[in-house]
Amino acid sequence: MPDTLHIASGDLLRLVRTAFERVGVPASDAATAAEILVSADLQGIGTHGVRRLGPYVARLRDGVFAPAPTIRIDRTAPATALVDGGGGLGPVVGVRGLSTALEIAAETGIAYVGCRNSQHFGALAPYARRAAEAGMICLLGSTAFATMAPWGGREVRIGNNPIGLGAPRRGAPPFILDIALSVAARGKMRLAQQRGEAIPPGWALDAEGRPTTDPLEGLKGFVLPIGGHKGYGLALAVDILAGVLTGGAVSPEVRSLFQQAREPQGVCHFFIALDPARLLGRDAYGDRIETLCRLMAETPPFDPAAPVLIPGEVEARTLADRTARGIPLEAAEFAAIEAMARGEPPDKVAAF
Amino acid sequence: MPDTLHIASGDLLRLVRTAFERVGVPASDAATAAEILVSADLQGIGTHGVRRLGPYVARLRDGVFAPAPTIRIDRTAPATALVDGGGGLGPVVGVRGLSTALEIAAETGIAYVGCRNSQHFGALAPYARRAAEAGMICLLGSTAFATMAPWGGREVRIGNNPIGLGAPRRGAPPFILDIALSVAARGKMRLAQQRGEAIPPGWALDAEGRPTTDPLEGLKGFVLPIGGHKGYGLALAVDILAGVLTGGAVSPEVRSLFQQAREPQGVCHFFIALDPARLLGRDAYGDRIETLCRLMAETPPFDPAAPVLIPGEVEARTLADRTARGIPLEAAEFAAIEAMARGEPPDKVAAF
Repeated sequence: MPDTLHIASGDLLRLVRTAFERVGVPASDAATAAEILVSADLQGIGTHGVRRLGPYVARLRDGVFAPAPTIRIDRTAPATALVDGGGGLGPVVGVRGLSTALEIAAETGIAYVGCRNSQHFGALAPYARRAAEAGMICLLGSTAFATMAPWGGREVRIGNNPIGLGAPRRGAPPFILDIALSVAARGKMRLAQQRGEAIPPGWALDAEGRPTTDPLEGLKGFVLPIGGHKGYGLALAVDILAGVLTGGAVSPEVRSLFQQAREPQGVCHFFIALDPARLLGRDAYGDRIETLCRLMAETPPFDPAAPVLIPGEVEARTLADRTARGIPLEAAEFAAIEAMARGEPPDKVAAF
Repeated sequence: MPDTLHIASGDLLRLVRTAFERVGVPASDAATAAEILVSADLQGIGTHGVRRLGPYVARLRDGVFAPAPTIRIDRTAPATALVDGGGGLGPVVGVRGLSTALEIAAETGIAYVGCRNSQHFGALAPYARRAAEAGMICLLGSTAFATMAPWGGREVRIGNNPIGLGAPRRGAPPFILDIALSVAARGKMRLAQQRGEAIPPGWALDAEGRPTTDPLEGLKGFVLPIGGHKGYGLALAVDILAGVLTGGAVSPEVRSLFQQAREPQGVCHFFIALDPARLLGRDAYGDRIETLCRLMAETPPFDPAAPVLIPGEVEARTLADRTARGIPLEAAEFAAIEAMARGEPPDKVAAF
C-alpha cells in the first residue's frame, strides 16, 4: 500500500499556485489554474486534478505552453464572444471564457463564448460548479485529443469530447453533469488488464472492429462512443460548438499533452451560459428544478442501499468530506508537487 | 407484402394540411404542421412522420389539443424568449419557437427560446434542417413521455428526451444530429420479439434490473439510456433546458400521446440558435466545418462498402430520392390520410 497523506486544500492550493509561478505564470493566473486543479481533486476527480501539474509545468518550462499569454477577447455580437487563448494554460483560458459568458448572460439572458488556442483544461465540473455557484446555468464542452474512431472507421480520429451542464439548486448542491463521450476511459481498460479481468461488452472493439471483452484487445483496438453512432454524433456536435465555431482546431487536429510534447495542443472549449433570473425567474426556477430532482431521487431503487442519484451529488459529498479532512494524495505525488513548488523540474510526465 | 404506394410530397402535404384544417386548425398552422410531418417522411424518419397524423387529429377532435391556441411569446431578455404554446399542436408551437430563436440570434449572435404547454412535435430533424437551411446552427431538444428509469431506479420516470444539432455546410447537405437518449427504441425490441431474435447486450434490463438479451424480458423491464448514467444525466440536462427553464412540465410529468388521451401532454422544447456570421464569419465557418467532415469521411472504414458517414448524410440522400420518386406509404395508411382529409375521424390511434 502506498503511503497516503491528507493535505488541506488551502495548503495544496498554495503549493500548486507557487509551482505555476516558478515557471513564469503571473500570480493571478497561477491562482486560477491552481483553483481549477484542486477543485477537481476536492470533488474526487483525481484523474483531472493536481496529477496534471507535472505535465503542465513540463510544457510551461519547455515553452510549449505560454506562461503569460496574450488572451484576446472579441465580442463578436451582443451575446457572443470569441476568446483566443494565445496558447496559455487551459484553466486560465477556460476561466476567462467562463467569466465572460457569465457576465454577458447576465445582460442578455444567454451567452455563447468559444475559446480557441487553449490546452487541456482539466475536468468540466470545476467550471460548471463556478457557474452554478454564481446562480447561472452553463452548458459547456471541450475538444480533446483524438482517442475514438468515427463510427464505422478503423482509425482514431475524434476526441471523446466531454460535455457538461451546471445548474444551481435551492438548498442543495448544484446539478453537475461532466461526461466524456466514450463508454469508458482507456485507463479503466488498463486497470482491468492489470487485474486479469474481462471488460464488459460494449466498451471496446478490437483492432479488426470486432466487439471484445478482452482488455488487451480493446487497448489495441478502439474505445467505443456512448450509444454507438449517437455518441459519435454528439462528439461531432461538441467539435462544431467548440472547434468549428471558434475557427480553432477540431479534435482530429488536437495534439496530445503527452505524445506530441513539443507542440501546443490547440484545444477549444465552449460555454453557453443562461441566467434563470432572465427566464422564468429565480423562485419559479428553484421550484421546478427541485421538483425534477425530487421525482428522480424518490424513484424506488433496485438496490435499497444504492438510491437514485442526481448528477453532482457524489461530488458534493466528496467535496464536503475533503474540505473537512483534506485531499488524499500518495506521499510520492505530494513530494513531487512540493519539489515543483521549490522550482525543481517535474521528475517525469505521468502517462495518461 | 402490403401494397406500397409512392406519393408525391406535394400531394401528401396538401392532404395532411387539409386534414388539420378539417378539425379547425387555421390554414397557416395546418400548413406548418403538415410540412414538419412530411419533412420527417422525406428524410426517412417514418416513425415521426404522417403516421402521427391519426393521433394528432384524434386529440384535436377530442379537444385535448387546441386547434387554434393562443400562443404567447415573452421576450424575457435581449437574447431569450419563452413561448407558451397554449396546448396547441407540437409542430405549430415548435416552429414558432424555432423561428423566434432564428430571428433573435441574427441580432444577438445566440438566442435561447423555450416552449412550454406544447405536445409531441415529431422528429427533431425537420427543425434542425430548417435552421441549417437558414444558415444557422441550432442545438435543440424536447422532453418526452417517460420511458426510461433514472439510473439505478426500478420505475419508469424520465423521457428518452431527444437532443439534436443542425449546422449548415457549404456545398453539402447540412449536418443533422437527431437522437433519442435511449440505446434503442421499444419498437426495435418488439420487432426482435416478433422475429424470435435476441436483442444485443446493453439495450435493456429485465423487471428485476438484470441485463437481458431477451426482448420480451426487456419489454417488461427497462430500456437503457446511452452510456448508462451518462445518458441519464444528458436526459436530465434536456429536462432542465426544456422543462425547468420554461416553467413547464418536466418529463416525469409529461402525459402520453396514447395512454392518457384525455389530457394535453405538456411537452416542452428548447432551441438554442447560433449565427456563424456573427462569430467567425460565414467563409471561415464553411472552411472549418468542411475540414471536420472531410477528416471524418476520409477515415478508412472497417467495411469498404460502408464508408464513415456524417450525421444527416443518409437523410439527405433519402430526401433527394423521395423528392424525386415520392414517399412510400402502405395503401391502408394512405387511405386513412385521405379519409381524414375528407373530414372523417381517424379509424383508430396507432400504438406507439
